[in-house]
Amino acid sequence: MCEKEKMLKGELYYPEKDEELFNDRIKCKVKCQKYNNLSPDNIVERKNLIKQIIGKTKTKYWIEQPFMCDYGYNIEFGENFYSNHNLIILDCAKVTIGDNVFIGPNCAIYTAGHPLDYKARNEGLEFAKPIKIGNNVWIGGSVVILPDVTIGDNSVVGAGTVVTKDIPENTVVVGNPARVIKSIKNIGD
Amino acid sequence: MCEKEKMLKGELYYPEKDEELFNDRIKCKVKCQKYNNLSPDNIVERKNLIKQIIGKTKTKYWIEQPFMCDYGYNIEFGENFYSNHNLIILDCAKVTIGDNVFIGPNCAIYTAGHPLDYKARNEGLEFAKPIKIGNNVWIGGSVVILPDVTIGDNSVVGAGTVVTKDIPENTVVVGNPARVIKSIKNIGD
Amino acid sequence: MCEKEKMLKGELYYPEKDEELFNDRIKCKVKCQKYNNLSPDNIVERKNLIKQIIGKTKTKYWIEQPFMCDYGYNIEFGENFYSNHNLIILDCAKVTIGDNVFIGPNCAIYTAGHPLDYKARNEGLEFAKPIKIGNNVWIGGSVVILPDVTIGDNSVVGAGTVVTKDIPENTVVVGNPARVIKSIKNIGD
Repeated sequence: MCEKEKMLKGELYYPEKDEELFNDRIKCKVKCQKYNNLSPDNIVERKNLIKQIIGKTKTKYWIEQPFMCDYGYNIEFGENFYSNHNLIILDCAKVTIGDNVFIGPNCAIYTAGHPLDYKARNEGLEFAKPIKIGNNVWIGGSVVILPDVTIGDNSVVGAGTVVTKDIPENTVVVGNPARVIKSIKNIGD
Repeated sequence: MCEKEKMLKGELYYPEKDEELFNDRIKCKVKCQKYNNLSPDNIVERKNLIKQIIGKTKTKYWIEQPFMCDYGYNIEFGENFYSNHNLIILDCAKVTIGDNVFIGPNCAIYTAGHPLDYKARNEGLEFAKPIKIGNNVWIGGSVVILPDVTIGDNSVVGAGTVVTKDIPENTVVVGNPARVIKSIKNIGD
Repeated sequence: MCEKEKMLKGELYYPEKDEELFNDRIKCKVKCQKYNNLSPDNIVERKNLIKQIIGKTKTKYWIEQPFMCDYGYNIEFGENFYSNHNLIILDCAKVTIGDNVFIGPNCAIYTAGHPLDYKARNEGLEFAKPIKIGNNVWIGGSVVILPDVTIGDNSVVGAGTVVTKDIPENTVVVGNPARVIKSIKNIGD
């Protein structure tokens, strides 16, 4: 297996020893910089460039500048995606986002991790685990989402929350680490 | 009432269905991008452009780049305002800042919220509640301030705090969510 | 003593009343802006410019854009330094970073503080205390490190942590404020 295959399988891999991965990241960051430098009123070009950066998009999406990610091709947006300023997605593993997901400013979606053993870490070994955000999820501002997390449909993540574990459907979570504070039931039915 | 009037009254409104609001945001973000691209040593132009972005300023203010906000005209600075890098203000409702307020890097002032009911949320309904920061307040770095919060005079918000409720005068708060850890009394009298 | 000497000794000083300090900051921020505007694929120039900004570097270092600091000359990197996007270092006091230190996105290293007494604060008095990060330390994403903190060798700071006190060697800390959750012993030996 090449390093990219190991990365996508969630195994330990060397991101720096693989020229393809390095080049993919640099190309992605060049496109993100171009996106971030577009005039905010250049709406057509903004939509075009996001389509070139992100693996899968639907028809309606909007990302306030700046936006940064590692590869782009590992990210999948559902319909009606919105993120406010300063979204960072480390998409070494897949990041799958459902329909009608709204993300506040300064949010971070981190699929990447390092070994706790500093000897393995110093050699350059890393791993990545996928993140999945369901449909109709609202992620408040300044939220951090960690590797291997799934957020259930219709849930709400309060501003400033650090999400370390899966979040069930129809719940509101807050805090560091995230804890459930409310169940959302039958609202609007 | 138009959507802008509803927004400013704290009622549910549709930010995307109103062309005036959309255009106001885009114009504001064009100005913020221009500000962020100025050379840091172009002090005269930096001060001029902040005056054009922010609703009310006094004579002394300084904002490290980058800075981002939604409308700008809903923000009011008192005398001797300072913010470090990366301040984000979602000023859908009024943001009123007193005299001698110092804000650390990476802070976020969020007046905006969405309904918890995903059906209303997906329709595009939002609301905003004002934020008020008193005189002589020090907001540490990486602080998040949520809608409808008032921070009392002379208080200090520790770095990394998430402020979800009002903070009394003369207190020090820290944590997520913010909790009072100290009263500041008679210092320097 | 001039203000710069007081600053470096950890005493109260006036950062705004000293022309040298003001000019040093502006010059540093001009260089940081130049760095942040370089094309991500301009690897040679990126390495050169970091060498000009940072007080001491070794041979291997990499900083994802954007990066911001106050003076640059108070920062010292060990060998094999890596930081992801959006690192902010307020280096009013010394920031000493050991070998093999990896820093996630959106991290903040703050040596700067203000008096709790608003009268002293409003006069423009500040202080700064050094921060020291040992060898083989992994700082996760969205971490905040406060003045006067030392992080011991081989330790790991979880994403979203606010580090307010010293962290011993060989430990994992998480939370706001940081608390030890694990000891790392003999791994990989």
